[in-house]
Amino acid sequence: MLNKKMTTNNNYYNPKQMAIREKVFNTIIRCFKRHGAETIDTPVFELKETLTGKYGEDSKLIYDLKDQGGELLSLRYDLTVPFARYLAMNKITNIKRYHIAKVYRRDNPAMTRGRYREFYQCDFDIAGQYDAMIPDAECLKIVHEILNELDLGDFRIKVNDRRILDGMFAVCGVPDDKFRTICSTVDKLDKMSWEDVKKEMVNEKGLSEEAADQIGEYVSMQGGMDLAERLLQDHKMSQSKQACAGLSDIKLLFKYLQLFHVTDKVVFDLSLARGLDYYTGVIYEAVLTQAGTVSAANEAQNDTNAEESVSVGSVAGGGRYDGLVGMFDPKGRRVPCVGVSIGIERIFSIMEQKAEASPQKVRTTEVQIMVASAQKNLLEERLQLISELWNAGIKAELMYKKNPKLLSQLQYCEEAGIPLVAILGEQELKDGVVKLRVVATREEVDISRADLISEIKRRTEA
Amino acid sequence: MLNKKMTTNNNYYNPKQMAIREKVFNTIIRCFKRHGAETIDTPVFELKETLTGKYGEDSKLIYDLKDQGGELLSLRYDLTVPFARYLAMNKITNIKRYHIAKVYRRDNPAMTRGRYREFYQCDFDIAGQYDAMIPDAECLKIVHEILNELDLGDFRIKVNDRRILDGMFAVCGVPDDKFRTICSTVDKLDKMSWEDVKKEMVNEKGLSEEAADQIGEYVSMQGGMDLAERLLQDHKMSQSKQACAGLSDIKLLFKYLQLFHVTDKVVFDLSLARGLDYYTGVIYEAVLTQAGTVSAANEAQNDTNAEESVSVGSVAGGGRYDGLVGMFDPKGRRVPCVGVSIGIERIFSIMEQKAEASPQKVRTTEVQIMVASAQKNLLEERLQLISELWNAGIKAELMYKKNPKLLSQLQYCEEAGIPLVAILGEQELKDGVVKLRVVATREEVDISRADLISEIKRRTEA
Repeated sequence: MLNKKMTTNNNYYNPKQMAIREKVFNTIIRCFKRHGAETIDTPVFELKETLTGKYGEDSKLIYDLKDQGGELLSLRYDLTVPFARYLAMNKITNIKRYHIAKVYRRDNPAMTRGRYREFYQCDFDIAGQYDAMIPDAECLKIVHEILNELDLGDFRIKVNDRRILDGMFAVCGVPDDKFRTICSTVDKLDKMSWEDVKKEMVNEKGLSEEAADQIGEYVSMQGGMDLAERLLQDHKMSQSKQACAGLSDIKLLFKYLQLFHVTDKVVFDLSLARGLDYYTGVIYEAVLTQAGTVSAANEAQNDTNAEESVSVGSVAGGGRYDGLVGMFDPKGRRVPCVGVSIGIERIFSIMEQKAEASPQKVRTTEVQIMVASAQKNLLEERLQLISELWNAGIKAELMYKKNPKLLSQLQYCEEAGIPLVAILGEQELKDGVVKLRVVATREEVDISRADLISEIKRRTEA
Repeated sequence: MLNKKMTTNNNYYNPKQMAIREKVFNTIIRCFKRHGAETIDTPVFELKETLTGKYGEDSKLIYDLKDQGGELLSLRYDLTVPFARYLAMNKITNIKRYHIAKVYRRDNPAMTRGRYREFYQCDFDIAGQYDAMIPDAECLKIVHEILNELDLGDFRIKVNDRRILDGMFAVCGVPDDKFRTICSTVDKLDKMSWEDVKKEMVNEKGLSEEAADQIGEYVSMQGGMDLAERLLQDHKMSQSKQACAGLSDIKLLFKYLQLFHVTDKVVFDLSLARGLDYYTGVIYEAVLTQAGTVSAANEAQNDTNAEESVSVGSVAGGGRYDGLVGMFDPKGRRVPCVGVSIGIERIFSIMEQKAEASPQKVRTTEVQIMVASAQKNLLEERLQLISELWNAGIKAELMYKKNPKLLSQLQYCEEAGIPLVAILGEQELKDGVVKLRVVATREEVDISRADLISEIKRRTEA
């Protein structure tokens, strides 16, 4: 596997990987900033009790710190719960923030004792009491912008609503106390066939075959605003107030998404469930639809232990969670929130594979010029010149040798992708010029010292 | 304290603090990249055994993870040891890298059970077998560039060499096995008077009064290249081969620093010791010399528990550690290294205090324009326009309300420092224009939709 060459070890990232990561981060941060987001930071540890009861079955993956007689601490499992706690703690009722930071989870604890996983999450959230679906639509616009700009291939954004799911379960005859567990099973539809999902519902979770079949009909439905309208007329679905509220919001959401010109990528999909307990309204997930990239993503999951609760091909997900902040407020004050998490680790893996497949080398520095010498005993002159360049903001390197060979200086440039070389020699010093060499073409031209900086900028800051 | 207003809690950072941090990071990263550095990342946990025996007395501050039956893990204490391990593990013999990441230390464990501290370190290191003092000089140039650009006030960079200290101890009659402990005491000279330091040497560490007095004479010496030359002639000092090697390198270092035009800020100071065990050659530390900022820095230490082993007013430090990588290589292969760590947490605190003292507000977003409406029922038109702006790369916000009041939209801009407002009304829509309002001057001008984007760029991307 080509990918192995780049990956030195789990959680170690070499300069080539970091260069790719930086590019991805920059694209995403640029988008978040374009939408007016601020950023905050929260500690890597939270009180164990803060995390308890927020992640459903996944709580077993929380990593605890050694009990040293003080507070019991755990490593943060995601960025959403710390965000909610931050809002409650500081009584913040309105904020649009992004947060890019590492989270920590235990590897399947039964199988690999004590091993852990460390990976980035990349979240954008809007908190505040606003008119319906406006911030929700912006979150989807953001996903659309980011996936377009990263150029990962074609994608779809699936949309659903927790209230539609719950309403559907109710009208299909699922007992109230089985909503969550049946929801988890529906969530597996992107990895399992309907037959297997139905088997799990009936055999493992004790649902009646009839109820399962009714669910089966609904979860096969996909569409747009028209589907939401049809379901609002559906004789069964329309009996659920919850489902109707969700369906009306989906309609409104599509109206706004039309104004954003992104409906070509968005599909209302009743099989989308998403695992986490805290969602209360609209939910969404972006998936790559091209076979090539999907298999790359699939692989990424095995290689770098990509993010939990992100299904095959999934590169972003999120939804509305109006109740979470209230759980941390002493008076239970609610702050409605909606957000999206970009599946950044999977995107890194795809970008790394693309880079490996491309004939173009990944540059790990942005150096514009190498300050070189053609003869011996010119270290002082090189130091003086490079100092001038640094002071003028030029990215420049020199070899840390008193008398490097010209050839090895030029070879270094070829390997590192440095486009220009400033060559100093006795004659050039006498003439007050520098020989500027273009590495790619081997063209050489004498430039006066006075014009050197502007010439470098002209040739490398296009 | 003004500073308290910004600090919500230890390890929580609000948008204002993050905006200041981002600015500082950008300045520093720009400098590291100008010098051709790549970046890497290493995991937040290391095997406990990796960290053992590298930090001398400070080892008690290492934070352990819960023993869950697998490997014993500790949180990284700094970025230097993980870097050295990374080089050895991947057999890398040449690299110039920066690494900005969080490290973790226990708070004085005897006093505050279980509490920990989390803070950024910001390191630049050059690894490789090179000609003497060239990379070392570049590290000092980098410190000079960063402190200049951050504009923290006047500063000095103190320079010394472990070999000069060891040679000095030897010729002053310090027994070999007391070098390290006497060195720790010398390290306290920036916080304690010579009298108290001498007392500790004699009474606590059992050094003879005569030896202490001889040390006292040397450690009061400060100068430049001239001092190194004088000490090379010093009848006692010149008896130590080690000291002479160090002094010759200091001479060479100053020669290179002269070519970089930075000697005005650099002082050869025989009292500079630095605590960590792994230094083998040149060491240095940058301190702010202005009373105001020094007291601010001092305060920062109490407030945010700034970095260990950084003395009062210190904002950067580092040195040469030629033996550390070899400790992680199975065959003990040496990779000489020199590096510098920027005292970023202290710099953040100083910048926050400066921001609080300044009449200018810190902006937490870069939003260029607010898309507003002057009448009711224009949400769709606002959504359409803002989508066009986002697609053109303009940073834009709108209020998440169907019918916001114009006044509250304008007030939002004033508070958030958004410079422009695009106001939509029935008339403007009819005329195919947007009323562009400059928030600061209240000037309003009609701009055609076709010209809007270039007009926004012209006015905000100066």
